[in-house]
Amino acid sequence: MKTGFIGLGKMGMNMVAGLLDHGHEVLVYDLSQSNMEEAAGIGARAVDSLSTMVSQLEPRRILWMMVPAGKPVDTTMDALLPHLSAGDILVDGGNSNYRDSVRRARDAARYGVLFLDIGTSGGLEGARHGACMMAGGSREAYEQLEPLIRDMCVDGGYGYMGASGAGHFAKMVHNGVEYGMMQAIGEGFDILDSSQFEFDHREVARVWSNGSVIRGWLMELVCRAFEKDGRLDYLSGEIADSGEGKWTLEAALEEEVSAPVIAAALFRRYRSRSDDNFSDKVVAALRHEFGGHGFSSKEV
Amino acid sequence: MKTGFIGLGKMGMNMVAGLLDHGHEVLVYDLSQSNMEEAAGIGARAVDSLSTMVSQLEPRRILWMMVPAGKPVDTTMDALLPHLSAGDILVDGGNSNYRDSVRRARDAARYGVLFLDIGTSGGLEGARHGACMMAGGSREAYEQLEPLIRDMCVDGGYGYMGASGAGHFAKMVHNGVEYGMMQAIGEGFDILDSSQFEFDHREVARVWSNGSVIRGWLMELVCRAFEKDGRLDYLSGEIADSGEGKWTLEAALEEEVSAPVIAAALFRRYRSRSDDNFSDKVVAALRHEFGGHGFSSKEV
Repeated sequence: MKTGFIGLGKMGMNMVAGLLDHGHEVLVYDLSQSNMEEAAGIGARAVDSLSTMVSQLEPRRILWMMVPAGKPVDTTMDALLPHLSAGDILVDGGNSNYRDSVRRARDAARYGVLFLDIGTSGGLEGARHGACMMAGGSREAYEQLEPLIRDMCVDGGYGYMGASGAGHFAKMVHNGVEYGMMQAIGEGFDILDSSQFEFDHREVARVWSNGSVIRGWLMELVCRAFEKDGRLDYLSGEIADSGEGKWTLEAALEEEVSAPVIAAALFRRYRSRSDDNFSDKVVAALRHEFGGHGFSSKEV
Repeated sequence: MKTGFIGLGKMGMNMVAGLLDHGHEVLVYDLSQSNMEEAAGIGARAVDSLSTMVSQLEPRRILWMMVPAGKPVDTTMDALLPHLSAGDILVDGGNSNYRDSVRRARDAARYGVLFLDIGTSGGLEGARHGACMMAGGSREAYEQLEPLIRDMCVDGGYGYMGASGAGHFAKMVHNGVEYGMMQAIGEGFDILDSSQFEFDHREVARVWSNGSVIRGWLMELVCRAFEKDGRLDYLSGEIADSGEGKWTLEAALEEEVSAPVIAAALFRRYRSRSDDNFSDKVVAALRHEFGGHGFSSKEV
């Protein structure tokens, strides 16, 4: 299918490569000229503006955005929508907040444009060789796009999740679950590492990746990390986040659902970023005040 | 290899069937006559006592126990050890506490018997068609047994973890990680279920099982459960445990390792079993006492 693809970051570039592999005709646009050249080098057709892209696609156009969540999506849509026609399909394949997707579907509907929010999982490898996609929004648009989505995903790795926002909501919760699973794995290796035994983490991760109950892609990625260095000395334990665990917890709060594991995993990430945590200082100070317990002095 | 296999519960029976598939000669013993008959029916040789089993194996014997953790292991070992010879290998393939395995290895050593603690994962399917095994104890015994272990496991799904106890310690931590991962998955579906959307949990689980970051065996098992009933109305949310999550947390406490996710997952299990929780009652009573907030009366 002929598709306009906007956003050639790491995920977008890999998805374009996958689409080209499957014989689709892909027009690409990105703010970075060098990304456009790279995409052109593998067979995509680079266009110089979003309006050019629209003009080179026939109505019932397909436009796929893979731009950073937040303002870039709105900016892109503001630039695109006036040029689009009723019946065109606009996809946000990024990590947008589902509330934004609900709003954007309404904005698109004013132009008669069918909007799909498609959460994408599977990392860079998935983007290149078969991802996992959760779609929300117009079912009609989803069905029209299914051949394209099928070519971008692994077998069975895509589905229609429901009304506008449902795709990004499902992806958000997926990431919340991911935080919890990752933290559980981290704690397990910490307990192994501090034990009386001398575990070779590479060996443990390899064995756990094959035939165990906790086998899966995350465990395979742990293997890969330990293969680089069994002690992970090449990185620090500061854990960043891209917001979806936080949104998952916000959703849990709104729904009044108890989610202690996802909460603990998110809060461990916050704690991981501070060398000298204020709540820890308050507790250390209190121990000193009531019990005269010592504390570690801070060097000034 | 000729092997004496003790314990024909669900796991043991499946493992015996797997060994027979691979052409091994298996002598079996179990307290249940009908289990013995079942094993004999698939080609194992049933013996009437542990001493008979020992007498029908040549020295450098291999004996594999697959009996419930705790007293049954000690009882079996007490009955076996006096009949064994130096150089015989005794395996505990069950879910024993690693501390017991350290002690039992010492007990076995008094007879010159090489003891292996082998944690087994992969559920009943793994036991039948290829499990995951974590071995601790005598490395010499492990190497001798490797051809047998290889036939019981999936490719890459077994390894030597270290000194006596390390096998069961690794299996224990595996289960702790499993608790955390399962709870994260549970919370995710709870948040989906309480959302403004109408998710089909079967669809979500199917999509998440294919190509997503959180794909793996647990997600496939969620699929299977939802295929029976998308609302899981065939069961209650009371979650039992077989002790290994608790042991993992005990190890974390002993090592002073922070493991909030595994702790939260275990405590959710405890909470899941009480209809009317005392800490919840205390908090509800306090809200009433200080703020005059209402409470739900208990019908007497």
